[in-house]
Amino acid sequence: MRIQLINPNTCQGMTDKIASSAVAVALPDSEIIARSPAHGPESIECAFDEAIAATALLDVIAEGEAQGVDAHIIACFGDPSIDAARELANAPVIGIAGAAFQMASLISHRFGVVTTMSRTLPAAHHLLERYGYAHLCSGVRATDIAVLSLEHIEHSVYQQLLRECHAAIEQDGAEAIVLGCAGMSDLATELSIELNVPVIDGVTAAVKLAESLNHLNLTTSKSGQYASPLSKKFIGRYAHFSR
Amino acid sequence: MRIQLINPNTCQGMTDKIASSAVAVALPDSEIIARSPAHGPESIECAFDEAIAATALLDVIAEGEAQGVDAHIIACFGDPSIDAARELANAPVIGIAGAAFQMASLISHRFGVVTTMSRTLPAAHHLLERYGYAHLCSGVRATDIAVLSLEHIEHSVYQQLLRECHAAIEQDGAEAIVLGCAGMSDLATELSIELNVPVIDGVTAAVKLAESLNHLNLTTSKSGQYASPLSKKFIGRYAHFSR
Amino acid sequence: MRIQLINPNTCQGMTDKIASSAVAVALPDSEIIARSPAHGPESIECAFDEAIAATALLDVIAEGEAQGVDAHIIACFGDPSIDAARELANAPVIGIAGAAFQMASLISHRFGVVTTMSRTLPAAHHLLERYGYAHLCSGVRATDIAVLSLEHIEHSVYQQLLRECHAAIEQDGAEAIVLGCAGMSDLATELSIELNVPVIDGVTAAVKLAESLNHLNLTTSKSGQYASPLSKKFIGRYAHFSR
Amino acid sequence: MRIQLINPNTCQGMTDKIASSAVAVALPDSEIIARSPAHGPESIECAFDEAIAATALLDVIAEGEAQGVDAHIIACFGDPSIDAARELANAPVIGIAGAAFQMASLISHRFGVVTTMSRTLPAAHHLLERYGYAHLCSGVRATDIAVLSLEHIEHSVYQQLLRECHAAIEQDGAEAIVLGCAGMSDLATELSIELNVPVIDGVTAAVKLAESLNHLNLTTSKSGQYASPLSKKFIGRYAHFSR
Amino acid sequence: MRIQLINPNTCQGMTDKIASSAVAVALPDSEIIARSPAHGPESIECAFDEAIAATALLDVIAEGEAQGVDAHIIACFGDPSIDAARELANAPVIGIAGAAFQMASLISHRFGVVTTMSRTLPAAHHLLERYGYAHLCSGVRATDIAVLSLEHIEHSVYQQLLRECHAAIEQDGAEAIVLGCAGMSDLATELSIELNVPVIDGVTAAVKLAESLNHLNLTTSKSGQYASPLSKKFIGRYAHFSR
Amino acid sequence: MRIQLINPNTCQGMTDKIASSAVAVALPDSEIIARSPAHGPESIECAFDEAIAATALLDVIAEGEAQGVDAHIIACFGDPSIDAARELANAPVIGIAGAAFQMASLISHRFGVVTTMSRTLPAAHHLLERYGYAHLCSGVRATDIAVLSLEHIEHSVYQQLLRECHAAIEQDGAEAIVLGCAGMSDLATELSIELNVPVIDGVTAAVKLAESLNHLNLTTSKSGQYASPLSKKFIGRYAHFSR
Repeated sequence: MRIQLINPNTCQGMTDKIASSAVAVALPDSEIIARSPAHGPESIECAFDEAIAATALLDVIAEGEAQGVDAHIIACFGDPSIDAARELANAPVIGIAGAAFQMASLISHRFGVVTTMSRTLPAAHHLLERYGYAHLCSGVRATDIAVLSLEHIEHSVYQQLLRECHAAIEQDGAEAIVLGCAGMSDLATELSIELNVPVIDGVTAAVKLAESLNHLNLTTSKSGQYASPLSKKFIGRYAHFSR
Repeated sequence: MRIQLINPNTCQGMTDKIASSAVAVALPDSEIIARSPAHGPESIECAFDEAIAATALLDVIAEGEAQGVDAHIIACFGDPSIDAARELANAPVIGIAGAAFQMASLISHRFGVVTTMSRTLPAAHHLLERYGYAHLCSGVRATDIAVLSLEHIEHSVYQQLLRECHAAIEQDGAEAIVLGCAGMSDLATELSIELNVPVIDGVTAAVKLAESLNHLNLTTSKSGQYASPLSKKFIGRYAHFSR
Repeated sequence: MRIQLINPNTCQGMTDKIASSAVAVALPDSEIIARSPAHGPESIECAFDEAIAATALLDVIAEGEAQGVDAHIIACFGDPSIDAARELANAPVIGIAGAAFQMASLISHRFGVVTTMSRTLPAAHHLLERYGYAHLCSGVRATDIAVLSLEHIEHSVYQQLLRECHAAIEQDGAEAIVLGCAGMSDLATELSIELNVPVIDGVTAAVKLAESLNHLNLTTSKSGQYASPLSKKFIGRYAHFSR
Repeated sequence: MRIQLINPNTCQGMTDKIASSAVAVALPDSEIIARSPAHGPESIECAFDEAIAATALLDVIAEGEAQGVDAHIIACFGDPSIDAARELANAPVIGIAGAAFQMASLISHRFGVVTTMSRTLPAAHHLLERYGYAHLCSGVRATDIAVLSLEHIEHSVYQQLLRECHAAIEQDGAEAIVLGCAGMSDLATELSIELNVPVIDGVTAAVKLAESLNHLNLTTSKSGQYASPLSKKFIGRYAHFSR
Repeated sequence: MRIQLINPNTCQGMTDKIASSAVAVALPDSEIIARSPAHGPESIECAFDEAIAATALLDVIAEGEAQGVDAHIIACFGDPSIDAARELANAPVIGIAGAAFQMASLISHRFGVVTTMSRTLPAAHHLLERYGYAHLCSGVRATDIAVLSLEHIEHSVYQQLLRECHAAIEQDGAEAIVLGCAGMSDLATELSIELNVPVIDGVTAAVKLAESLNHLNLTTSKSGQYASPLSKKFIGRYAHFSR
Repeated sequence: MRIQLINPNTCQGMTDKIASSAVAVALPDSEIIARSPAHGPESIECAFDEAIAATALLDVIAEGEAQGVDAHIIACFGDPSIDAARELANAPVIGIAGAAFQMASLISHRFGVVTTMSRTLPAAHHLLERYGYAHLCSGVRATDIAVLSLEHIEHSVYQQLLRECHAAIEQDGAEAIVLGCAGMSDLATELSIELNVPVIDGVTAAVKLAESLNHLNLTTSKSGQYASPLSKKFIGRYAHFSR
């Protein structure tokens, strides 16, 4: 199967990193096609960034659909544009936050989330509510690490992350840790060994769910909320969406 | 004061209609500046339309800010992009759905919402949850009237709307009706007389709330969630947002 | 329009203070008629006080109705008797707690409430639940300032209030402050400057909402929950309510 | 022990009826002192009636306290003034709605409530939320029987009640029925036989809970929310509450 | 009446202790039949222990039913197997956690729970949700006292318990304390005197509720969720349940 | 990897059926070991059946652990004993209800559940709450098909099932269907074609999740709620659990 892995940020370093994480867990016959949009912010760290990125991401979804990919993964912890993407695509669309919550709930009673900037906390809480995992989350902690500094992680940044993971476990009662940014995907194994609890990265979790849906012959229901968008006129820089 | 009234759809007819509704209730010294974006769908009827419109709307917010308007109103019942707009703007930003719910809750124990397409129902329910009004809403009813057919309302369309309002009152126990589309703003008075319950239009409600905040010297808190977006690089068609 | 502003406490000093706050924000053609009941406690600081005050307040509502006022404001943060008042009155009835929550939710993601006695905390939480704002509130903090000491505010009392506001912002993450007592209405501007976040007073907020409803031609729905009370016999000191 | 059984309505017929129901289930050494207030509405059927009755009821609580009763029962399904009464009294105060919900939850998975006027439905729902039983209730049904017509129940009124009980069981899935008015207390046995499910009357349930608390040496905690009201000045017709 | 009081643990010391607590509050004509199962763990301290104990407990329910007891009490704070027991029995079945929550809610606005092992906290929270008392609970505190060490309580164990009760009152705002283990039933009086707030033990609370249901002629509804189990074949060590 | 697939019912026909469904979707190197307990009811259709089956199931978990399996699947829609099993096992434990809800939420906005007996409805609702999917479920419908009649499905039984699926889609707005019994696992494909919406079977969903966890190197967190049970004495028929 072919899985389109989308980094909604426009920084190439992040795209390369998540592609590598995804390939490491994919089945031999799963092809990972990693892409980032041609338009938008280099990193997503607030509602404004997310709103802009959300639109450009839909161009990538459309591109993947045109190529007939079998699944799309939105590899940004806010799962931006996921409803719009599910409307646009025939292939299933998986967000990495939702994927990580699902895996975490299978192996712990309460999981903690450790994420980047404090400003993204409301977005994380919103996702926990939306997907129904708020009562299974022991807390969301921000590290105030900038997303771009995760492209190449320095020692001090790693220590900062480690500190909040420890606090999640010892103060909040987290039994497992969900990493709250695609840019942390290469740290899951190392952190898990150091912390002695399961550490879940959403990128790899999403790859396995994409493969699972494929093997189960399940794809987005097009009756109801995720039916294709109605044909209509779009103007200006979105005229290509007119149908 | 100057109030920027934004129709996130790109259809001019709707913009003219809501401008006229807004002017009718505005105080003498409130100037209404009605605008619609230069890019995007002619109407918003699903999550895909909304995601595209949300971005273009932020250009209009930026334009209003540059001109120093005193408030922004997002005149689409989904209150699209409201968090991003509040980050971007210094002036307060009011969504018409939120405004209508507020007014409805002051004059009824349970209000009903009558909206356009069935597909927008989840968005309406999401807003009721987000703003905290779900328990005060007797139900949301779709008319399956297309947004564009509200530019010039035919008799049959009006009858369809009336029918769902009656059902909201008689079957669901609505004590007041919230109109679920900016395009219905010119119908509130007529419907209220016919139905004999208060009928609330969000466009006019938002104008009064904008004036109220102005008189109270209240504007968006820039400490916390609605702080200005971090400066960063945007590429492609959003390069103008780079700072 | 004529707005009846009711102080449900029987202390005249408080009535004078809130009248002055209300007049300061009212439109030129809004007449403020400030009243307090002829019966009841000099201040409301627990459920017992509130139950007693609630009844006497209804006499004032009836008086205002007889005079044909266009709106009633219940200027006590517990919004006492609001359902009963809405049944009794034809003019809309606005509580200052509800009004303050509405304004706060338009300009912040999370607001804090700073109130008087610790014992009133459950009442504040109940109102947040009732109106649907609990999830938008970062916390309610008591100052243990007695209501009557707000008639003429001493320096130490102001400092105590300021301390809890700071705690709400710094410890609870409040992005705006709602003042939890009508007796604090003259402090909003001063506190806002000192705290550098918006500070919302319910008395002035309610005045603007009363004017807004009036301009929108909206008044309490009399079909359903807020229909007029059934005619029946009352005995003893409430015989005047018999119809 | 001595149990003060308060009918907050001023109709003597109802007081006599509930006294008789209470005596029938009381232990031999439990003395039932049935009282109704000297002031207020002859029946409670909306928020306005309840607000007025709530105050007069506190006089009766005070009277019982002066006589040293061991428990108070508020025998009106809205449990009016219960928080204020718990503050005022040293003896425990039990409301019949709360008592009925407790018993119903011990013997069924989902219980239905059958009550009087449609307008009292929001009050019933509010109580279910307040006490935490909303998720255990299959629905609340109004019969639109006036409270006073329950003093002497005619055949047609009984049939109406029976019809809604059947609907609660067959349409809503109720496994037990809670009677939503003190005036129905003499019908529990007859209805239970006819319906073949348990039928719970709050008056008798409250008597047993009052005795239970007494045998367990439990009485209202006076630390915290139910501490005695602060001493203060009351004026006018409530001057007797000044301390 | 005859009340079967079941200790689901297999330790006889606990059975003797709760029998003595129950007898102390029972009416003269209430016979307490205390039993523990012939199979299972000596104490219940995690989900595994509870699952095993739950089954053996059903044998005891069956035994009591065969003898025609009038009520069953499950005297373990997790209220294990209560739904299954209600299906199996004709007599009502009362759990001590549910019973304690009911009594606590009658005499306090917020009660705290003080229990044994930290691992049982999720079970306590689950019960609070299930019965609807979560919003009335100020917090659940574990003492990490092993259940078996409650058979004969040493001074240091009592001090540990006292410490957490104080913390519940002073830090969490508990107005009353619910003891979270049947093995603490003999401490309620002593603790109540020392703490100066009501202390509720579920064993004695359940006895009074059992008597109350009996006097009210109320027993488990057998229509719906608690209907008798369908006849079917059981094999192996549960073959005796075949019908 | 080796996956122990447990049918908690004692009917061999069901075990064979689910083994065959599991094998059909398993990866080539996943070995499916299907087992049913040596003790307990031939089918699980109420809380009593489930309580009995829950215990015997733990023997099977212990057996699988002794053999070093890599995952356990509890193949009964109530996910019986899942917490106890997670404590007992080192390998992850997956319930088929939870697994089905996860897959359904990835491909639909609202899914419906179609299950067996009406009495199991509360158990299904409880699981939806526990896992956090209640708001994503359009409704649970019972077919009143006995579990054992699913071993060999007759035409009339299939029609009954089809009828409720249609009702879930057309009346409740389900966009996908979750099959509420392991015994329906062989019908998913056929029903999906007939209904034209995705149909999710929990047995196959659980197999894919078990493989996913394995590839991600994730297993149950043993710190916190799912730590191994404390060593203690068990008597009678559970003496083998003593440690």
